[in-house]
Amino acid sequence: MLQKAGSPAFFLWQHAPCARASVHTMAIALFTDFGASDLYIGQVKAVLDREAPGLAVIDLLNEAPACNVRASAHLLAALVPWLPQGTVFFAVVDPTVGGARVPLVLEADGYRFVGPDNGLLSVWCARAARVELFRIAWTPERLTPSFHGRDLFAPIAARLATDRLRADDLVRVQSLEVDFGADDLSEIIYVDHYGNAVTGLRTCAVSEQCAIETGSRRLSYARVFGEVAQGEAFWYFNSQGLAEIAVNRGNAAAQLRLAIGDSVRVVR
Amino acid sequence: MLQKAGSPAFFLWQHAPCARASVHTMAIALFTDFGASDLYIGQVKAVLDREAPGLAVIDLLNEAPACNVRASAHLLAALVPWLPQGTVFFAVVDPTVGGARVPLVLEADGYRFVGPDNGLLSVWCARAARVELFRIAWTPERLTPSFHGRDLFAPIAARLATDRLRADDLVRVQSLEVDFGADDLSEIIYVDHYGNAVTGLRTCAVSEQCAIETGSRRLSYARVFGEVAQGEAFWYFNSQGLAEIAVNRGNAAAQLRLAIGDSVRVVR
Amino acid sequence: MLQKAGSPAFFLWQHAPCARASVHTMAIALFTDFGASDLYIGQVKAVLDREAPGLAVIDLLNEAPACNVRASAHLLAALVPWLPQGTVFFAVVDPTVGGARVPLVLEADGYRFVGPDNGLLSVWCARAARVELFRIAWTPERLTPSFHGRDLFAPIAARLATDRLRADDLVRVQSLEVDFGADDLSEIIYVDHYGNAVTGLRTCAVSEQCAIETGSRRLSYARVFGEVAQGEAFWYFNSQGLAEIAVNRGNAAAQLRLAIGDSVRVVR
Repeated sequence: MLQKAGSPAFFLWQHAPCARASVHTMAIALFTDFGASDLYIGQVKAVLDREAPGLAVIDLLNEAPACNVRASAHLLAALVPWLPQGTVFFAVVDPTVGGARVPLVLEADGYRFVGPDNGLLSVWCARAARVELFRIAWTPERLTPSFHGRDLFAPIAARLATDRLRADDLVRVQSLEVDFGADDLSEIIYVDHYGNAVTGLRTCAVSEQCAIETGSRRLSYARVFGEVAQGEAFWYFNSQGLAEIAVNRGNAAAQLRLAIGDSVRVVR
Repeated sequence: MLQKAGSPAFFLWQHAPCARASVHTMAIALFTDFGASDLYIGQVKAVLDREAPGLAVIDLLNEAPACNVRASAHLLAALVPWLPQGTVFFAVVDPTVGGARVPLVLEADGYRFVGPDNGLLSVWCARAARVELFRIAWTPERLTPSFHGRDLFAPIAARLATDRLRADDLVRVQSLEVDFGADDLSEIIYVDHYGNAVTGLRTCAVSEQCAIETGSRRLSYARVFGEVAQGEAFWYFNSQGLAEIAVNRGNAAAQLRLAIGDSVRVVR
Repeated sequence: MLQKAGSPAFFLWQHAPCARASVHTMAIALFTDFGASDLYIGQVKAVLDREAPGLAVIDLLNEAPACNVRASAHLLAALVPWLPQGTVFFAVVDPTVGGARVPLVLEADGYRFVGPDNGLLSVWCARAARVELFRIAWTPERLTPSFHGRDLFAPIAARLATDRLRADDLVRVQSLEVDFGADDLSEIIYVDHYGNAVTGLRTCAVSEQCAIETGSRRLSYARVFGEVAQGEAFWYFNSQGLAEIAVNRGNAAAQLRLAIGDSVRVVR
């Protein structure tokens, strides 16, 4: 799947004079399950600030579905295109940290990623036209078994965003070890704080004429919340381009008892 | 109410050589109900970073009362003066996003605001001596119905903060469509994570000699927590200048069963 | 305990030409119980941005154990060495704000701290080889009784980080008023969002051959989560160097009914 023919070398791309039109293309976006309120992200940011002072770091989502790498992979793939090309994604949902899984750097369709080879990067990767894939060969002096995010991925992300990776920090590889593929996912992949339940279905997988079934309920499409009665459940295309189940002025997840990982079915 | 006599033109103010003493007056402060841990604020920040790299962006509050624009409007008005003049408030509590409500830019008493015309900006506006009001005429290439915060308000906020709005981006208007007025609000408008219950009553609406009634309880004033016994309920002026119901070393909202929107009564 | 012999003067250290190798050593790290989602941290950051535009501010933890200064002190002491030397810690867990406790600036082993003299800084201080301690003599024009974090500690932290404190802002003192000492704490001091329960025991206080008892359960050591069966409880050294009770793919705090303040016992 990877290393499609004709893709230019990663380092050439990285150093091409026109590659970065301005400094803001180098922002680092965090996509993790480290918890938005917990003590992990601050330690990651301290490393990023030490390695790359002044670099913009954006908390894209630190409450990614922790027990569900597949759902996280589909959610990440939906969020990527809403950030500027060149962004470095620090993407770490890594339940088997400390085990044997490989640390990766991925460049795919103009975006860059640092994270584990456990499927998390694979959905975006499988859908990309132009892919370069590297194993991280560099190891830090101090690597705690349970926090590779701080000790390994953060220094690499900072150096990637500031063009300071050395030639032997990365080793090119040909394919991912865990690959979820390019297909859409007929499941709930995220529930937001309003109770809206996001599916892994894009516009190419479901159309406005379809209904979406979840459990015993069949839901019709509406363009916006205001098109249905207060308290009514429906589905719509959310602002990331995914089919999302919602209730006008209500909490869909609570009302329909939906949770991450639940299956949904498209009825044509 | 708006367009008070003698107010100088907005654009003149904006470009006056002394208007911004230094770069820090241009910070953007976020006041939204998008959720502090959710996936929306990161997308907004990515747009702000793309449009205005290096600009300071401060999460003032991303857990504003979601179902209650009126409470949010009073809370916002109380928070504004604690930030430096010139600050651009990205103020979006917008339950009818995608409907017909008008997107606004407001300049009032030295502060600037971007947000919907649904009452959210109206309390600060009604209390201001000097007001300029504009409808946002600019529309982005890509406007999703459910996320005007990212697609419309964020680019405008970034351009406003960096003096890059064009003449035809804004159209002057004479009045707000939804206006809650300048009066104080005899309700709980916020509950913080300690369980303290903030009212919409300022020092001009309640004095230390007054009691505040909530449900069947009548509470007396104390200056600080330490002036009452452990576990005792009282009210005091909080650090934003609002009357707040609290319990020394306890959770007032849980103990007194208070929620946003509950009425309170001042007893003189 | 403080003012160990031979320690160079604080201001000399602060202004020494080699003291700050680059700008990033001046970051401010927030360690508070103000709530990660609440309206307090934004106001603190607005003051920091006003006083020191462009300064890096890192949310290390804003959900420190609110009702437990002792636990917070041990947690802070464990987190400090993971940030670069020179970092200014804005450390405010201050349940008696508005009372008589003294506001402090502490320099200890290359790190700097601003916070209350209620024990919060005392664990790091007691373990440090080189300590300088100052009472904050400066008072702001506007000091609300309940938010010294915004009104007093934030301006001092910003000036400390940017070398703009004046000689009479600080008065040297000889010792802390509240001192928890250097010893480890045999208690749960934090529970993270995965449900892992952190103790106040470092590698010097417990070894891999020991068991840790909590309530009626005796837990053995494992190096990483993957070394025990799914659902099994164990203890390990976490990424901050503290003994931590966990369940592989489970929530230890829920499963073992652990909360901050619970005692643990080391069985050798």
